[in-house]
Amino acid sequence: MAGPAIGVGLLGYASMGRAHSRALLALQHLDVPLRPELVSISGRTREAVEQARERWGWGEAVADWREQVVDERIVLFDNAGPNAVHAEPTIAAARAGKHLLCEKPLGLTAGESYEMWQEAERAGVAHLCGFNYRFVPAVRLARELLEAGELGEVVHFRARYLQSWGWDADPALWRFDPGQAGSGAIGDLGAHIVDIARYLGGEIVSVSARVRTIVPGREVDDQFVATVEFESGMIGTLEASRLAHGRLNSNVFEVNGSKGSLAFDVERLNELDVADTKSFRRVLVTEPDHPYLRHWWRPGHIIGWGATFVNELGHLLEAIAGEHGVAPHGATFEDGYRCSEVLDAIVRSAESGRQEQVSYR
Amino acid sequence: MAGPAIGVGLLGYASMGRAHSRALLALQHLDVPLRPELVSISGRTREAVEQARERWGWGEAVADWREQVVDERIVLFDNAGPNAVHAEPTIAAARAGKHLLCEKPLGLTAGESYEMWQEAERAGVAHLCGFNYRFVPAVRLARELLEAGELGEVVHFRARYLQSWGWDADPALWRFDPGQAGSGAIGDLGAHIVDIARYLGGEIVSVSARVRTIVPGREVDDQFVATVEFESGMIGTLEASRLAHGRLNSNVFEVNGSKGSLAFDVERLNELDVADTKSFRRVLVTEPDHPYLRHWWRPGHIIGWGATFVNELGHLLEAIAGEHGVAPHGATFEDGYRCSEVLDAIVRSAESGRQEQVSYR
Amino acid sequence: MAGPAIGVGLLGYASMGRAHSRALLALQHLDVPLRPELVSISGRTREAVEQARERWGWGEAVADWREQVVDERIVLFDNAGPNAVHAEPTIAAARAGKHLLCEKPLGLTAGESYEMWQEAERAGVAHLCGFNYRFVPAVRLARELLEAGELGEVVHFRARYLQSWGWDADPALWRFDPGQAGSGAIGDLGAHIVDIARYLGGEIVSVSARVRTIVPGREVDDQFVATVEFESGMIGTLEASRLAHGRLNSNVFEVNGSKGSLAFDVERLNELDVADTKSFRRVLVTEPDHPYLRHWWRPGHIIGWGATFVNELGHLLEAIAGEHGVAPHGATFEDGYRCSEVLDAIVRSAESGRQEQVSYR
Amino acid sequence: MAGPAIGVGLLGYASMGRAHSRALLALQHLDVPLRPELVSISGRTREAVEQARERWGWGEAVADWREQVVDERIVLFDNAGPNAVHAEPTIAAARAGKHLLCEKPLGLTAGESYEMWQEAERAGVAHLCGFNYRFVPAVRLARELLEAGELGEVVHFRARYLQSWGWDADPALWRFDPGQAGSGAIGDLGAHIVDIARYLGGEIVSVSARVRTIVPGREVDDQFVATVEFESGMIGTLEASRLAHGRLNSNVFEVNGSKGSLAFDVERLNELDVADTKSFRRVLVTEPDHPYLRHWWRPGHIIGWGATFVNELGHLLEAIAGEHGVAPHGATFEDGYRCSEVLDAIVRSAESGRQEQVSYR
Repeated sequence: MAGPAIGVGLLGYASMGRAHSRALLALQHLDVPLRPELVSISGRTREAVEQARERWGWGEAVADWREQVVDERIVLFDNAGPNAVHAEPTIAAARAGKHLLCEKPLGLTAGESYEMWQEAERAGVAHLCGFNYRFVPAVRLARELLEAGELGEVVHFRARYLQSWGWDADPALWRFDPGQAGSGAIGDLGAHIVDIARYLGGEIVSVSARVRTIVPGREVDDQFVATVEFESGMIGTLEASRLAHGRLNSNVFEVNGSKGSLAFDVERLNELDVADTKSFRRVLVTEPDHPYLRHWWRPGHIIGWGATFVNELGHLLEAIAGEHGVAPHGATFEDGYRCSEVLDAIVRSAESGRQEQVSYR
Repeated sequence: MAGPAIGVGLLGYASMGRAHSRALLALQHLDVPLRPELVSISGRTREAVEQARERWGWGEAVADWREQVVDERIVLFDNAGPNAVHAEPTIAAARAGKHLLCEKPLGLTAGESYEMWQEAERAGVAHLCGFNYRFVPAVRLARELLEAGELGEVVHFRARYLQSWGWDADPALWRFDPGQAGSGAIGDLGAHIVDIARYLGGEIVSVSARVRTIVPGREVDDQFVATVEFESGMIGTLEASRLAHGRLNSNVFEVNGSKGSLAFDVERLNELDVADTKSFRRVLVTEPDHPYLRHWWRPGHIIGWGATFVNELGHLLEAIAGEHGVAPHGATFEDGYRCSEVLDAIVRSAESGRQEQVSYR
Repeated sequence: MAGPAIGVGLLGYASMGRAHSRALLALQHLDVPLRPELVSISGRTREAVEQARERWGWGEAVADWREQVVDERIVLFDNAGPNAVHAEPTIAAARAGKHLLCEKPLGLTAGESYEMWQEAERAGVAHLCGFNYRFVPAVRLARELLEAGELGEVVHFRARYLQSWGWDADPALWRFDPGQAGSGAIGDLGAHIVDIARYLGGEIVSVSARVRTIVPGREVDDQFVATVEFESGMIGTLEASRLAHGRLNSNVFEVNGSKGSLAFDVERLNELDVADTKSFRRVLVTEPDHPYLRHWWRPGHIIGWGATFVNELGHLLEAIAGEHGVAPHGATFEDGYRCSEVLDAIVRSAESGRQEQVSYR
Repeated sequence: MAGPAIGVGLLGYASMGRAHSRALLALQHLDVPLRPELVSISGRTREAVEQARERWGWGEAVADWREQVVDERIVLFDNAGPNAVHAEPTIAAARAGKHLLCEKPLGLTAGESYEMWQEAERAGVAHLCGFNYRFVPAVRLARELLEAGELGEVVHFRARYLQSWGWDADPALWRFDPGQAGSGAIGDLGAHIVDIARYLGGEIVSVSARVRTIVPGREVDDQFVATVEFESGMIGTLEASRLAHGRLNSNVFEVNGSKGSLAFDVERLNELDVADTKSFRRVLVTEPDHPYLRHWWRPGHIIGWGATFVNELGHLLEAIAGEHGVAPHGATFEDGYRCSEVLDAIVRSAESGRQEQVSYR
């Protein structure tokens, strides 16, 4: 059961703010070493922040995240705001010694992400970048199988993240504003699969990509395709789109190794398909000994998307309590930064028409 | 957002008590007209009750449900205890004017269930029997499609509920004790699919069944098969087993009508397969206008098994607030009773080797 | 490669005659010990028989099957005609010492089927009843896994055969004429799954069924549901329908045993889902060492429905050549008869409202 | 029914020779305007050719394809030999005025393929390159839906062809000999998906690829990944591998357009998944009005891999008889050549590390 309290300040009240708030509330009653206390929530629109405060039971609604940074009750600063307000508040919170969770993509550029990582390291705080799909039990199981050598030498990786809402979406969304979002499908969807690729396959050393904006008037990308090479020599493909009708949230990967293969789709996030040399087995990742399942239900009783945030924040609380590091199962700001470098290389490659090396600072 | 408080008393701290507690906590922050206040929790084992109190934040742990029945702060009595303690506490709570939620199966026998229903009716309180699968968005969508005539005349229904844990289970579980559980797969799994059958197909008028206990030393049934006839003349099959390897929680139904068909499986509970006269369409039931989705996430972001309890208890709170009746989308104690009559007829038919009429009192 | 010639006479030119003719032609070039020679084809409608002769290369078109029975060149009499012309021609051919293939269901009634079996036995000829789904490689693999004890003690069997063409079908079809077809979904679809049930689960000793005719003006059944008990004590369900929209040819079974489960669907006839105690593995039954695959392609290159007739007739030719018996992998006339008894018991049970014993003569 | 005879000469007796022979035999009895007569078969190994002759009923076994080229009885020259013997015999046959079928990939290089196309054009004969997957009914249906505008503007294409036999294969196979095969997965599997990409998406104008040989001692590629741009501006990915455990013959594509999407897998080759703007519908492509189905069975009764050759050769016979062109539904030698240019560009790009334009002569 949750132990001593830990004060949390949240930036952001929209879709992500909602998911984080609900996860924090759930964690007040689960087996984690620290009990999250909802100290304050901040955001641009006073009325919306106040509504979120009331709904989720945050102690205070504050107009400016700077108030949170100087608030001594806050030990964990959780940045679930739009991409453009990731860097400045997070860095300020790091300097103030807060532990950090920042939603993905970490910064608007690799440079910004690097700075965030460096500041977090310098401050010596725990830092986690919100790649929540690492916290799908089936995804962590995939990683554990790979680490244990169950797949042998891994030779091929493919991932795609397809959604369909881009065709008819409201043009006023912040996700379509380059100033706020940085990019479109690349930062929104691509970031997730780049992180999964790195989590499962190791460092990416070069990319070759094509990027498109299809919908008239849109200023960010709608889709991209890329080939990648990993440090191990393994090759693979990555692609993402907001224009794939019939796919609502199809975040799919497959890994092929010398002893077997793994396949996964977020739309069926409780299932991991595991092949030996012959055939695929559909594993329902809901057993007591599966990762993160101690927070959940009996075998066969599935969990939903919201559970990934519970698992993620629970993992971070354990890391803050010193039970384990944020890495390797959580993405650190270093992971956030390295992902940004891959995303930047995707953009460069689309412009240059060449393979681009991913150079890490 | 949750409105005025409503005091809740819970009986039961095990698997169901846990699911109900978590749902009540979640509902404190969702759009329901009453805000559940966790007044007290009761159960047989003092230590376990105390642990549950502490974990889920119940105000008090009480040794005897009778204390809850006389507690004026408690407006809703939620009975999530083993089957053998459904009737007495629930009836006492009804007589004390509490609104009621009782887990399924309602009573140990149809007679007991009938009495529970009559007492609840007499008391004029809201009463809901915990058939949580009605609160899967895809299942309610199925009902709405059927009611709207989208499937035309419905002519065939089949459902099966398969699990596999029965082969190696701990013989000391209360679920294997006839005194506490009443029956095995029949009451545990069969009750769910009988309720779904009635929710989607209307009243069942006769059954013909075979029941088996396979595992040596077990005193309750492991599996059953049945054919059924509905009031409409429609025929169908029902079957359940705790001995189906490979099936962890496979609660499946299919309905065939003159204009189309529907198919569903709880292991993929966000999906409803909808056929017109030619082919099946896989509908991911996660759109804003789908049932209960206002509590949840964006399209394609799936919900889990735990969400059914949130939807269910939210529905009950709305009913208590007068927004709508418990029926037809929630199962009332009448539904619980009618289900019991079908289950009893299944047992009678297995003994007599004949079709047995389901007679309602 | 096909060895000495064996003269074949075929009765029937419609859908089944076509499938048999194509299979015989294919077998002229495959590894079977006898090379089928297409001596003559017969049928009711002179013009249609002549067209079939020309198309499939039968030596002669004859107006009356009696000519075939006395034709000494014909060693194998293949009856692919409508149900009402199964018994008389087949018995006559048996008496004339021809080896026999007769389409399913064997006779219009169990009595007729029994007589056919007895006559074939008396004549000492090879006899096979056309349950072609036994010759799906995945189905025979299922049988072999069961025989080898891979599933342990088998405790539960379910099968259903669903099609959808019955809603809008031409009322003039022979399949709707009780005089020609005997029954509707029972003999057409139910016969197949009763045979599969017996092939995989052993003898059926009692049934309890409900039968319905839904479409106005139709004189044969559209659908049925049944529970069954096997000689082993195992219970199960059988159901069939011609009114299941979205299901074109969905012939599905599942077997649950103490060590694992098997699941299969004819719409994906190259796949067998095989569970151990935890999860299902999708086996693509296309490997060189899988049953009947020596006639076919490389791994992963699937076969179609027509291949079942090639496998079936090839098996019969081997049996005639003395390589093995028709049984157990082919259905004999005894199997055809025993299936008929189960079908008759289904009809009796629907009328009596009781479990009916399947009594074998 | 098959009309006047057309003499066919076949080069090749192995896996492809077998598939072609069986298809030709089947077509002798189907609705095509010309009846294939099996005049002669040729190949390197006298004994194997003689065995193939006897098995499939070819009139003669000849030691040298040159005999076939000068054989006046032969009107259609069908080259099903290894890649290295595609060009010379096919060109010789073209010059002798034979109609042509040549297996894929057309030539060992784009240059060779170009010459083959030019010679065939010059000779004025019908020419078809053996991309048999165009003749899967579901694939042609996909093309027809795209042509009819059912998917709107098409913006994203992805295809992958995965097999797994490469890990343990016999090193002596001709497919691993660069001299005979030209390349590995690129020409064997990649050729198929490049052709499908062109059939469904139009001309490919540039590629960016990575190619790997993994298995020690192997001299041809095991796998590749690529991004592509189409003439329309559409982007996509292509990848192939012989090292994907669990995938036996997984040839998969997906197309996303402004009105819907299509998805397909050869392992389930009777199914086309068709999405409108919301959800995918699983269409079983077995209806009488579906492409090529007049050769096959009733709805829901699936066809196998071998049927693609029947459909393909039937299409070619119709083209020879003047009923329609080989294009657009059959791949001509021009298509074979254009595919070769894409494959060559894949190799160039893997070497240069840049996007390579596909330049057509």
